[in-house]
Amino acid sequence: MILIGQYDSPFVRRVGIALRLYDMPFEHRPWSVFGEAEKIRPLNPLVRVPTFVADDATVLVDSASILDYLDYRKPEAKRLVPATEPARHKALRIMALGMGLAEKAVSLFYEQRLHDQISAVWAERCRGQAIGVIETLETERTGTSTTYWHGERIGHADIAVAAALRFLSEAHPQLIDWRKAPALEAHCAHCEALAVFQEISQPFIPPT
Amino acid sequence: MILIGQYDSPFVRRVGIALRLYDMPFEHRPWSVFGEAEKIRPLNPLVRVPTFVADDATVLVDSASILDYLDYRKPEAKRLVPATEPARHKALRIMALGMGLAEKAVSLFYEQRLHDQISAVWAERCRGQAIGVIETLETERTGTSTTYWHGERIGHADIAVAAALRFLSEAHPQLIDWRKAPALEAHCAHCEALAVFQEISQPFIPPT
Repeated sequence: MILIGQYDSPFVRRVGIALRLYDMPFEHRPWSVFGEAEKIRPLNPLVRVPTFVADDATVLVDSASILDYLDYRKPEAKRLVPATEPARHKALRIMALGMGLAEKAVSLFYEQRLHDQISAVWAERCRGQAIGVIETLETERTGTSTTYWHGERIGHADIAVAAALRFLSEAHPQLIDWRKAPALEAHCAHCEALAVFQEISQPFIPPT
Repeated sequence: MILIGQYDSPFVRRVGIALRLYDMPFEHRPWSVFGEAEKIRPLNPLVRVPTFVADDATVLVDSASILDYLDYRKPEAKRLVPATEPARHKALRIMALGMGLAEKAVSLFYEQRLHDQISAVWAERCRGQAIGVIETLETERTGTSTTYWHGERIGHADIAVAAALRFLSEAHPQLIDWRKAPALEAHCAHCEALAVFQEISQPFIPPT
C-alpha cells in the first residue's frame, strides 16, 4: 500500500495515523499537490491528497473511502469506527464535522492565498462555519467523560477532530479561541502527545 | 427522517434518489444554504446541504455518511453499495471520483460567482481536475459492458456520476465535450430516464 501526500494535510494525516494504529505496513510518498502534480495526476485525476494505492493497485482518492478500505481489512472488533449501528452513525457524524472543519480551513486558506481581493462573503462564511463547528464539537466533547470521544479506545472520530484542529490552528492561528474550547484543547493535547501523532506529523507553514 | 436541501445540489440529489430506491419514507425540506441559512445553522453548523435528520434525531452533515446510515438499515444484499470486499472499495472509488467532480464544479462556480477578479490559477486547476476525472470515468465506463457500473443493478456509484455530470453540464455547459465522452453520455441518459431521477430533480439555474 502506498500513501501519497504530506502530513501537514489533515486528510493525509488521519490516514497515516490509522495505518500506524492498524499496524499495516505502507510506503509513504510525501508529494506536494502543487510541486509534484505531474506525479499525482496519472494516479488520481483530482490531483489531490491523500491518494492511496491499495494492495490490488486500485487508487483511492479520498480519505473517507481509504479509511473504509482499511477498516474492512480488520475484524469488526478491532476497527477504529463501530461496525454496527447506532454507534456507527454517531461516530461518522463526528468524523464528518471534523473533516468539514478541515475543508473550511483549507478553503479559507486558498481564498486568502490566491486572491488580491478576497471575497468577504466567502471568507466570512468559512470563518462562521468553522467557529460553528468548533462550538458544536466543544459542547459535545464536554458532555463525554471518557478518554476518547466514544469510549476508552481511540477512533477515527478522535483523529479527525484532532487533525482538523491542528491544521486550523496553524493555518489560521487567530480563528480559534482556545479559552472557549477547553474540552477540545484537552482532547487535542491528549492526542498530540501520543507517539503515533508525534510520528505522523508535519507542521503547516503557510507560504509567505 | 428529514432531508434538507434542494435537488439542484448533486450531493442532496444522490441522497434523495437513494431514499426513493430504498423505499424509505422521508420529509423533504428544500431549504437554500444562502436564503435559509438561519434554519439550517441550528441543525448543522457547517450550514451545508444535505443536512439529514435521522430517526433518532442525530443530524448527519455529509452525503457519504448519510448514505452509509441508509445502507445499514437494509440487508446487505439489497444495499446500493457492496457490503463486502473487493467490490466495495471499487465502488467507493467511483463514488469518490463522482463526488470529487461535483466538488470541483461547485468550487469553480463560486470562484466565478464571488470574485470580480477570479484566480486564474484556481479556475484552471478546477477545470483541469474536472476534465481529468471525466476522462478517467469515460475510459472506465467504456470498459464495462453491464447496464450499470458494477452490474445489472443500479448503485450509489451510478447515481454519484450521473448527478455530478448533470450539475456540471448545467453549471458549466462549455466544460464538457460530450463527443469525447459517449459512454458517460449514455450512462447519464439511461439514469436520467429513470422515473426516480425524473422525480428527484431540480434544474440548476445559475443566478445572473
